[in-house]
Amino acid sequence: MRLAICVAAIGMAMMSSCGTAETQSVDKASVVIENIMTRKSVRAYDGREVEPKVVETLLRAGMAAPTAMNRQPWDFVAVTDKEVLEKLAAEPALSRAPVSKNCPLVIVVCGNMEKAAEGKGQEYWIHDTSAATENILLAAHAMGLGAVWCAGQPNEDRIEALRNVLGLPSYVTPLNLICIGYPAEEPAVKDKWKEENVHYNKW
Amino acid sequence: MRLAICVAAIGMAMMSSCGTAETQSVDKASVVIENIMTRKSVRAYDGREVEPKVVETLLRAGMAAPTAMNRQPWDFVAVTDKEVLEKLAAEPALSRAPVSKNCPLVIVVCGNMEKAAEGKGQEYWIHDTSAATENILLAAHAMGLGAVWCAGQPNEDRIEALRNVLGLPSYVTPLNLICIGYPAEEPAVKDKWKEENVHYNKW
Repeated sequence: MRLAICVAAIGMAMMSSCGTAETQSVDKASVVIENIMTRKSVRAYDGREVEPKVVETLLRAGMAAPTAMNRQPWDFVAVTDKEVLEKLAAEPALSRAPVSKNCPLVIVVCGNMEKAAEGKGQEYWIHDTSAATENILLAAHAMGLGAVWCAGQPNEDRIEALRNVLGLPSYVTPLNLICIGYPAEEPAVKDKWKEENVHYNKW
Repeated sequence: MRLAICVAAIGMAMMSSCGTAETQSVDKASVVIENIMTRKSVRAYDGREVEPKVVETLLRAGMAAPTAMNRQPWDFVAVTDKEVLEKLAAEPALSRAPVSKNCPLVIVVCGNMEKAAEGKGQEYWIHDTSAATENILLAAHAMGLGAVWCAGQPNEDRIEALRNVLGLPSYVTPLNLICIGYPAEEPAVKDKWKEENVHYNKW
């Protein structure tokens, strides 16, 4: 209910700002913002495969994220092979926030230090791959998939486990693994809006 | 052209996966993914104010991002006051990737160490605020605004400059500042898709 009001308000704000009723952009804004507001972590899947074209779309969405100095310091490992998925699911170091048994697709979003900036700016890979991850989560939600971001960096045990199972070289650090599938649960959307988090013009 | 093909392919994949032509979700997926694929960094603005309702929508989009262990370790400073904007624009430490003179809105996305997890997990604030930033950029693009992510953390000079101008306490670290306004330029969309960035099932 609150969301519907919020989306309606956007529409009105857009119309008044444009001076005319631009139906197309009102709809676009509402759809995009509703998708952002209703995305949630989905951890149970119905076991159906994710089609290769859809996997590619998720990866394209990831690579559309902005990166500092346009370094694109990333690589993506897309896991659909049952044996590898089982290895990830059975990995003790990943048992907190695990890959669930029915998960048909895991995308491991990695930073590649051979592509990242040198010096202090190397750390921007974390920003860049996080933005890519959010793109993938939003694209997944829009396509009727459920997904959840499970930690990698900075947890050394999880990084090592992913390196071992996937054969990642030492200059590649997994930011996370994203579990993705057609949902077998419909978790409630969390309302995380807190007015006290907002400061106008100064702290 | 390539994007149009990609979006059409999504539609077809969705329909075949659902078994029926669900027009509504096909449209939703296409709109959301097109918005992700066409977002770009916009650095020149026409000077028009961004309406308070729209600012709030951007902040709501930011707070809808997922956070590790649901810590929501963030605060947002929304700057629309001309004097503060001018201070940011004139700040020497921010002169690389500066706030442009016509920019009517800056959102500074901050990590708050009093809300973040303790120990090693504290670093997740960087992931969380990066995801929030991407949500804001996507919502801005959908509403016809242009925006650009300008660095804060880990650049100590930029962090200090933002702390000074905005009065941020020591336990608050600005991840970045996002410059936002109605576009006065239409930069080309970068095609960052690289097939060699994708690894299937192992490195």
